[in-house]
Amino acid sequence: MEQNNSIDNQRSEQTALSIIGQLLRGAGQVMFQNSIWTGLFFLCAIFWGAFREGESVVAWGALLGLVTSTVTGYILRLPKTDGAQGLWGFNGILVGCAFPTFLGETPGMWIALVICAAMTVWVRAGFNNVMLPWKVNSFTFPFVFSTWIFLLSARAMQGIPIEDMSSPSLPSHFTSLSTIPPLHLLEYWLKGVSQVFLINSWEAGLLMLIGLAISNRWAAVWAAIGSAIALFCAVALRAAGSDVSEGLYGFSPVLTAIALATVFYKPYWRSGLWALTGIVVTVFVQAAMNIWMQPLGVPTLTGPFCVATWLFLLPRIRLDYQTEIDHSTWDVEHKPHLARKGRQPMSSTN
Amino acid sequence: MEQNNSIDNQRSEQTALSIIGQLLRGAGQVMFQNSIWTGLFFLCAIFWGAFREGESVVAWGALLGLVTSTVTGYILRLPKTDGAQGLWGFNGILVGCAFPTFLGETPGMWIALVICAAMTVWVRAGFNNVMLPWKVNSFTFPFVFSTWIFLLSARAMQGIPIEDMSSPSLPSHFTSLSTIPPLHLLEYWLKGVSQVFLINSWEAGLLMLIGLAISNRWAAVWAAIGSAIALFCAVALRAAGSDVSEGLYGFSPVLTAIALATVFYKPYWRSGLWALTGIVVTVFVQAAMNIWMQPLGVPTLTGPFCVATWLFLLPRIRLDYQTEIDHSTWDVEHKPHLARKGRQPMSSTN
Amino acid sequence: MEQNNSIDNQRSEQTALSIIGQLLRGAGQVMFQNSIWTGLFFLCAIFWGAFREGESVVAWGALLGLVTSTVTGYILRLPKTDGAQGLWGFNGILVGCAFPTFLGETPGMWIALVICAAMTVWVRAGFNNVMLPWKVNSFTFPFVFSTWIFLLSARAMQGIPIEDMSSPSLPSHFTSLSTIPPLHLLEYWLKGVSQVFLINSWEAGLLMLIGLAISNRWAAVWAAIGSAIALFCAVALRAAGSDVSEGLYGFSPVLTAIALATVFYKPYWRSGLWALTGIVVTVFVQAAMNIWMQPLGVPTLTGPFCVATWLFLLPRIRLDYQTEIDHSTWDVEHKPHLARKGRQPMSSTN
Repeated sequence: MEQNNSIDNQRSEQTALSIIGQLLRGAGQVMFQNSIWTGLFFLCAIFWGAFREGESVVAWGALLGLVTSTVTGYILRLPKTDGAQGLWGFNGILVGCAFPTFLGETPGMWIALVICAAMTVWVRAGFNNVMLPWKVNSFTFPFVFSTWIFLLSARAMQGIPIEDMSSPSLPSHFTSLSTIPPLHLLEYWLKGVSQVFLINSWEAGLLMLIGLAISNRWAAVWAAIGSAIALFCAVALRAAGSDVSEGLYGFSPVLTAIALATVFYKPYWRSGLWALTGIVVTVFVQAAMNIWMQPLGVPTLTGPFCVATWLFLLPRIRLDYQTEIDHSTWDVEHKPHLARKGRQPMSSTN
Repeated sequence: MEQNNSIDNQRSEQTALSIIGQLLRGAGQVMFQNSIWTGLFFLCAIFWGAFREGESVVAWGALLGLVTSTVTGYILRLPKTDGAQGLWGFNGILVGCAFPTFLGETPGMWIALVICAAMTVWVRAGFNNVMLPWKVNSFTFPFVFSTWIFLLSARAMQGIPIEDMSSPSLPSHFTSLSTIPPLHLLEYWLKGVSQVFLINSWEAGLLMLIGLAISNRWAAVWAAIGSAIALFCAVALRAAGSDVSEGLYGFSPVLTAIALATVFYKPYWRSGLWALTGIVVTVFVQAAMNIWMQPLGVPTLTGPFCVATWLFLLPRIRLDYQTEIDHSTWDVEHKPHLARKGRQPMSSTN
Repeated sequence: MEQNNSIDNQRSEQTALSIIGQLLRGAGQVMFQNSIWTGLFFLCAIFWGAFREGESVVAWGALLGLVTSTVTGYILRLPKTDGAQGLWGFNGILVGCAFPTFLGETPGMWIALVICAAMTVWVRAGFNNVMLPWKVNSFTFPFVFSTWIFLLSARAMQGIPIEDMSSPSLPSHFTSLSTIPPLHLLEYWLKGVSQVFLINSWEAGLLMLIGLAISNRWAAVWAAIGSAIALFCAVALRAAGSDVSEGLYGFSPVLTAIALATVFYKPYWRSGLWALTGIVVTVFVQAAMNIWMQPLGVPTLTGPFCVATWLFLLPRIRLDYQTEIDHSTWDVEHKPHLARKGRQPMSSTN
């Protein structure tokens, strides 16, 4: 009797641990890392950055979005292997970061956040179905697409008031960056990483790089390279100063860099050159999408990363003499080169 | 000799009846009903509404669009099974409703209407080819896409003058709905149904619900639910008052509701919840597309219904333990649960 | 020893000739002609037109874009059969025409031109992968899509200054064409052809028609018909005068006409009617895309041709009783009816 109780206790503990693990992996998967430690660092970075900015509500939103989307996966009875890798949660946590950042804190906003976070789960299933014939993945586009719908509708509904989005305007003149002290560049560089989670804080960026390094050192290196090169391009091409200084030219190239150099191709000199080209192109895609969406007054989110990375994966170029190219997943079983330090098979609790 | 004559007469009568049947089915298929009675009620509703609004030209346009597109199917020698179900006509009748609603009555407009109605037939064949790998259908998107092309080009060509489209503008402030007397809500609710055919008349909406009930009672119930919930959401979220009072937040959710709850899933508690979620999401998609198209000054048409319904069908969620999910058609033979009162096999003249 | 030398010389001569051949074929493939003579005429027309307009930089840009994209095909080790037919170069030469036309002559522009021309090669491989299930080709859309990215980003980056693009504006009033002397119509008609390469010169248009006739007389005839009918439609529908007089309503229909009447269907009365319909629809698509992109202040490029032609190929209508419809390539081996005067198998140097 007692023994049974203890087994039951053990089991429910294990279930609780496994669910917490799934949530943390969900945070980690935003940057392609199936690791609870990375996820933990990312969550800490979000909380640190959000509280430092005085926007603690963003951190709570992130948590709510993460939980909502993970639960939705169970309700819809989607394949549990996805859930175990945290693939239900990574779009939801981004929804949770975005809503309180751009919208006012009303009950309508919180309801919309929950609907949108849940929606990303089946939208992801749908988009992945669409992209399967081309062997690519929808990445964070379910988050981008669903959030665009709600941010646009906020402009048509007073019940979801807009708090911090630039007004719709026609593209015209812009102010350039004046001379930047080198130390500030360091700050902008790290903000390029933290802005993946819509956090404007260099300390958060540093925490995220550490989190990445725990799971995959190459991912951390390439995230850093991505942000640095994007910053260089944005400054050299004289993009809008405020965007540069808030790291808004950095976050999409960071993701492109990790994807091309470490996830879909093995780290290698040829894939490195491919990733470098990808980083540069992502900067142009970011600038183009900024202009494209300016008349609507809605942010690009991680759209530029998705578009640019698709442009580099769809041709299925063979860089390292693989026999077959399949970019539709970054599952460890399909991509054994990703199974390094900190990445264990699903059954472990790591 | 006489006998032959009488057989010939019978035959040509049968052909005439079969063609009239195809045209009426075309009207019915706008709301997924392969039924001449439903089509007849819809046509009556269009004529009633158009004449009451003093826009009789809309009704004649609907008829012209319906005939043009059905004839085009024969000219292009497309599969006759589609034609027999009225699947050539439903995009054409909508083109015929839209052109005289938004454009001025010039010879150029009528020529453009004929071209556009014909075009929907092969555009539908093309779009269905595109969507076949994903097992979904193009719905009314051929109408939406083709009409967008012509409405946009009307802004660039004086030969097709614009009569009644809102001017292009940047999204900004909007006026909210003031207090609504409950009786008016009833009116708005029924207009949500009639606006599927771009008719702004609650009597037409009522006629359409009756037409739906003749073919499929669940379809009528869900059309009513769709319009009601959409109205509730639009009022609760304080969308633009004029849009709400003309039923412009209702017509897309009506179609989403019929599609999800009665066509692609069997009427059932799980599919009901799925459809309810779909209705709510369609309201947000409608609001988002309103804003998205505001700088162009072109209406969304039934675009929000198409987008939202795709988002709910593409994941191919199994709600009722079907062995295989195929949303690419709503043909009776593929969807036997649709074969109820008023829905007979193609060969009958029903 | 000497003999070896002479063989080596012969070989390097042959390689040089073959590379020059590939470049010229690249120019010819913009209008679907796998012919060095057509390419030569096109290049001469570009140089003639560019120098006459006082925009010699456009001609040098065209050359640079052509070389860059062809070299990129080799670097990425793409299938050499494509390269041998000039299919690496045709997007690149258009990038090279577009950049100096719309952007200011700065080092940033030249670097962007090289990146964009190279990018079209793998973007084309990617887009063709995407479209393969539907048996259509990406045509010049890799050029259109990549160039849009860079032209849009030029509005966000001072390092790539804009020289000659219309300012972003909301679609509103427009000035119509006043009475046109018939002789001018002739000029506008030929400019419709030359604008395929963004050249505003009737002499260049004439040279291009001659170049087309060398490779395929039907292509020349249909290019002429396409430009003429588009001009008639644009005048009859009273489109913006400046657009008409610069041939901007002509270039996309020219390409649609060649594609539908001579490349993807055999020249034939039924395919002729299909092509005529295609030309008219392309005029509307051109007008619609002009309005669609007006708030961004970016030109449509050959986008209307791509969209319209896809709309006519995706339905896979059987006009000439082919057993199977495959529009994914215009390779001579797949389309033997194209193998006429001036079109030889790849191995020849023609």
